[in-house]
Amino acid sequence: MSYLGVGISPGNVALYHGGKMKLIDRRLRLTELLLRCSVTALAFLGLILIVTDTQVKQIFTIEKRAKYTNMKSLVLVIAHQQVHNLRERDLFLVVTNGIAAVYSLLQSVRCVMGSMKGDVLLNKSLAWAIFSGDQAMAYMSVAAIAAASESGVIGIRGEEELQWMKVCNMFGKFCNRGAGGVASAMLASVAMVLVSCISAFSLFRLYGATTQRPPNLAVVK
Amino acid sequence: MSYLGVGISPGNVALYHGGKMKLIDRRLRLTELLLRCSVTALAFLGLILIVTDTQVKQIFTIEKRAKYTNMKSLVLVIAHQQVHNLRERDLFLVVTNGIAAVYSLLQSVRCVMGSMKGDVLLNKSLAWAIFSGDQAMAYMSVAAIAAASESGVIGIRGEEELQWMKVCNMFGKFCNRGAGGVASAMLASVAMVLVSCISAFSLFRLYGATTQRPPNLAVVK
Repeated sequence: MSYLGVGISPGNVALYHGGKMKLIDRRLRLTELLLRCSVTALAFLGLILIVTDTQVKQIFTIEKRAKYTNMKSLVLVIAHQQVHNLRERDLFLVVTNGIAAVYSLLQSVRCVMGSMKGDVLLNKSLAWAIFSGDQAMAYMSVAAIAAASESGVIGIRGEEELQWMKVCNMFGKFCNRGAGGVASAMLASVAMVLVSCISAFSLFRLYGATTQRPPNLAVVK
Repeated sequence: MSYLGVGISPGNVALYHGGKMKLIDRRLRLTELLLRCSVTALAFLGLILIVTDTQVKQIFTIEKRAKYTNMKSLVLVIAHQQVHNLRERDLFLVVTNGIAAVYSLLQSVRCVMGSMKGDVLLNKSLAWAIFSGDQAMAYMSVAAIAAASESGVIGIRGEEELQWMKVCNMFGKFCNRGAGGVASAMLASVAMVLVSCISAFSLFRLYGATTQRPPNLAVVK
């Protein structure tokens, strides 16, 4: 009895291949589970770091006193606007991280349940659903990182010509937390991309052309 | 003689399956070629539209006369800075579009040559190379769009609180060309994502588990 549950005549290469595939399957399932758990943890961490970025509240208080009367207060308004923009961009990242964390948690549960049952994913509809979900999540994460990392560059470099301040010099805590959040989300998105590759493998192998090892060789002999 | 080039005993289901796979393969190859050509054309169009956005030059001339003496000239400086930022972001999109156009052109040539030879992709190393390249291009395109579309929103909405102008009201031609370029790049990235799915299919089917239709059924009989 082979791993595939099909009786195979002795001497057939498929037996060896079945054992090899079984090993690959196990490792892949474990890798997938670890990656999905990592996405959940990292995305949640990123979300917490960005949401609890309290130092920003100080700037909002300062801004309320600032008026368009002199250059200095204008700079404060610009600083507020800049931080507000950073927060707005981070909002997209926060929402994406939240969705990624919940999605990956549910998928992790599915992985564990699948492992406990011990069966390989054979249902094409389910495989398509998982593949589509993973692809969407992976591209969404990468897009959120791309949008957020730009604001990080402005925060560090500033815009001298416009007297846009280097927010990171003025508000170190805000910047460090933000950077931590973005770094965490970045790692989560890398893990998500790898997961999407695994789910693509799980789906498309079901369409195996079997051209690599002609299945009916024994019959032809 | 089946499509796979392997003699198959009569009555085996693999014959029917081989014919079906042949049809799917042909359609898939055609779809892939069309998508890759679309990416080349759309990415190139996007690049041209953004690079030839000449109206910006006028703003640079105005900006040179502007100084920090009054509010009005400051607004002009901000306008310049804003447009400069838009251009900077678009630069990433331009570079990405250029790479995508050249990459897809080369891949299209490979597709045509493969079709002329008439063989299916069986080389795992080549399939891995194509898969990796396509994945990288797809994620890069989506990231570039995410970064650029944000600048588009600022251009249309403006930032009233900071007196950031609605660039689209002031410089219609600049905005229309830019929007055209981003839209073109967006379509190219959608096509690129679909291409990456096809190359994932082409790669991972080579690892087909063949659990759906036990290959040695005839032997067992």
